[in-house]
Amino acid sequence: MMARFSVTYWIGAADEQEARARALDIALEQTVEIPRDAVPAGYVEDEILGHLERLEPALDGRSGFVAEISYSDDDIGGDFLQLLNIIFGNSSIKTNIRVEDISLSEGILNLCSGPRFGMPGLRERTGVAKGPILMSAIKPVGLSAQELGRLAHDFALGGMDLVKDDHGLVDQRTSPFVDRLKACVDGVGEANAKTGGRTAYVANITGPATQIFDRAWMAKEKGAGGVMVAPALAGYDVTRALAADPEFNLPIVSHPTFAGPNMITPTTGFSHRFYFGLLQRLMGVDVVVYPNFGGRFGFTLAECQSIVRGAQMEFGGYKPVVPAPGGGMTFERIPEMQAAYGERVMYLVGGALIREKANLTNASKRLVAAVRGNA
Amino acid sequence: MMARFSVTYWIGAADEQEARARALDIALEQTVEIPRDAVPAGYVEDEILGHLERLEPALDGRSGFVAEISYSDDDIGGDFLQLLNIIFGNSSIKTNIRVEDISLSEGILNLCSGPRFGMPGLRERTGVAKGPILMSAIKPVGLSAQELGRLAHDFALGGMDLVKDDHGLVDQRTSPFVDRLKACVDGVGEANAKTGGRTAYVANITGPATQIFDRAWMAKEKGAGGVMVAPALAGYDVTRALAADPEFNLPIVSHPTFAGPNMITPTTGFSHRFYFGLLQRLMGVDVVVYPNFGGRFGFTLAECQSIVRGAQMEFGGYKPVVPAPGGGMTFERIPEMQAAYGERVMYLVGGALIREKANLTNASKRLVAAVRGNA
Repeated sequence: MMARFSVTYWIGAADEQEARARALDIALEQTVEIPRDAVPAGYVEDEILGHLERLEPALDGRSGFVAEISYSDDDIGGDFLQLLNIIFGNSSIKTNIRVEDISLSEGILNLCSGPRFGMPGLRERTGVAKGPILMSAIKPVGLSAQELGRLAHDFALGGMDLVKDDHGLVDQRTSPFVDRLKACVDGVGEANAKTGGRTAYVANITGPATQIFDRAWMAKEKGAGGVMVAPALAGYDVTRALAADPEFNLPIVSHPTFAGPNMITPTTGFSHRFYFGLLQRLMGVDVVVYPNFGGRFGFTLAECQSIVRGAQMEFGGYKPVVPAPGGGMTFERIPEMQAAYGERVMYLVGGALIREKANLTNASKRLVAAVRGNA
Repeated sequence: MMARFSVTYWIGAADEQEARARALDIALEQTVEIPRDAVPAGYVEDEILGHLERLEPALDGRSGFVAEISYSDDDIGGDFLQLLNIIFGNSSIKTNIRVEDISLSEGILNLCSGPRFGMPGLRERTGVAKGPILMSAIKPVGLSAQELGRLAHDFALGGMDLVKDDHGLVDQRTSPFVDRLKACVDGVGEANAKTGGRTAYVANITGPATQIFDRAWMAKEKGAGGVMVAPALAGYDVTRALAADPEFNLPIVSHPTFAGPNMITPTTGFSHRFYFGLLQRLMGVDVVVYPNFGGRFGFTLAECQSIVRGAQMEFGGYKPVVPAPGGGMTFERIPEMQAAYGERVMYLVGGALIREKANLTNASKRLVAAVRGNA
């Protein structure tokens, strides 16, 4: 037998008999996808078919059951998308089933090198040894490359540690990728020269399937300090491939656009902790942007705290990924966020600063001071 | 002003005032993602910001409202993933909002060449002028390339028009991609030589981000008659890029694995018609696999019929995509499916035939006869 990993599902079911039947269906659906009586005896049945390892009532006052199903490393075949297929492929189309947890195996550990930087690497690169790291976003779409480069400059001058593209900035005629890359690298570099700081520009490389790796490498060559990918749009193997390449060696930011349906209902998709925490670490992501509680999206404080746990708990020796709550962050909310997160997250502030465009540098300085204090 | 396209959303709201506020939030969120009072006057406000074009109560006995929001071709920037960003990126993380429809524009029509084959092309390639086309799937994972090639041969000998890989078959050591490709092309070719038929082998090219296009071209070079992609895993631009390439010129099958959360709740994600119909046509998909009603998944008859409408209705001149309902199809269900779909769909039968492994060719012949009759 090859090594096995296991996935824990929450299953909605009226009683244990129904839960067991559903769990056995999952074990079949996620692996062989043929009727149980057609599964060939021997290797396929023993090795490839999912094994129901555990079934018990859900805890924490939830209804339903928790099922742990183990799968073979042989089924992964060294392919990350196939790992996701096994974890939740066809069963994602069912309701009353949710992915909650995963235990690792040799096959997964070999396939997924994990975050190259994570929290320790980001602290080293930014020079922020203590207190939260800060990231801002240049936008909106429609500004010229020069205007965006100026915003990046002003953010950097104000002491923001990372300045990323808005996820909607791709290769629009108003700000082509190549021009924006140059303008922002130059703008941030100019500010760093003035301040002696280490602000990094993070380029959004999400784009045409045939160009995404070219953009990643171009970003690196031209001096970007990180790249951003939207995995739900660009595919779930892009970040893993970049993180696994020692030559690439740049921090990777993951953006949640288009990913919403994967976690927004409590009885389908993934738990927040799994999707924005564990999964991102398998994907080799260094910084994971997610919607903050109390902002424009509906995530609760408890869900956000579970994301931070998933991002930073012990997990196969993988580095902790940096959670970056965003989406409606304002100055007024800093105390609330400090209480909720301490220094375990990166503060992502875009719109609230852009609003003070004329005084962007000063607004950034005020934000850095308010978030980091004298740390 | 550039040409504009518009997206129609269903919005859950207690009254028109709330619906309007939510619609205006969407127009902002999907484009500039900064506070309304920070949107620069002129080009950004006039052109890039979404315009609320229409807001009215939902019909068909549904609660809530329907909002039509228009967006600029300039915002797309010739990038399909950015088009999806605009349609539903960040708003996908909200609940009580669902994508229902899209109107096209010059920018979309230039970017998306649509299905190269679609229903007419598939009929021509398979030689099935009338009656449903049939597709089967070789599986399970764990069989050798030779065993899978034998299954492909037997299906072809039995008259199945297309024989596709199971979506879980990637590059496992039991059946490496290259070996399986050869075994299946050879197996199907041998059967075609015996029957004079035109069965095509459809290779699953979903795999590592750095290899997916290589696999597509290898499949073509080695004689596959089509390729299969799981867009929710591999990214949403892969099929569009392949369909747009005149040199590639092979039918593309889209598989729904991992896509479930995008449409399984009625108040989030996409309508079935949009996701499995309109979107697939923009993606250049020729055959779209979706879960049939009454099978292992929870889709209703009405939802499935809406998929067929979305796949085949007039839509910017794009060819109709071939809907392929699968997931638990059996001989017994043929009359019910004929009543529901007529000859507008491709019958996808995997497990029910695999079960009769020893008599796969005869079982396939019986299925073809039962589905197509004397047509």
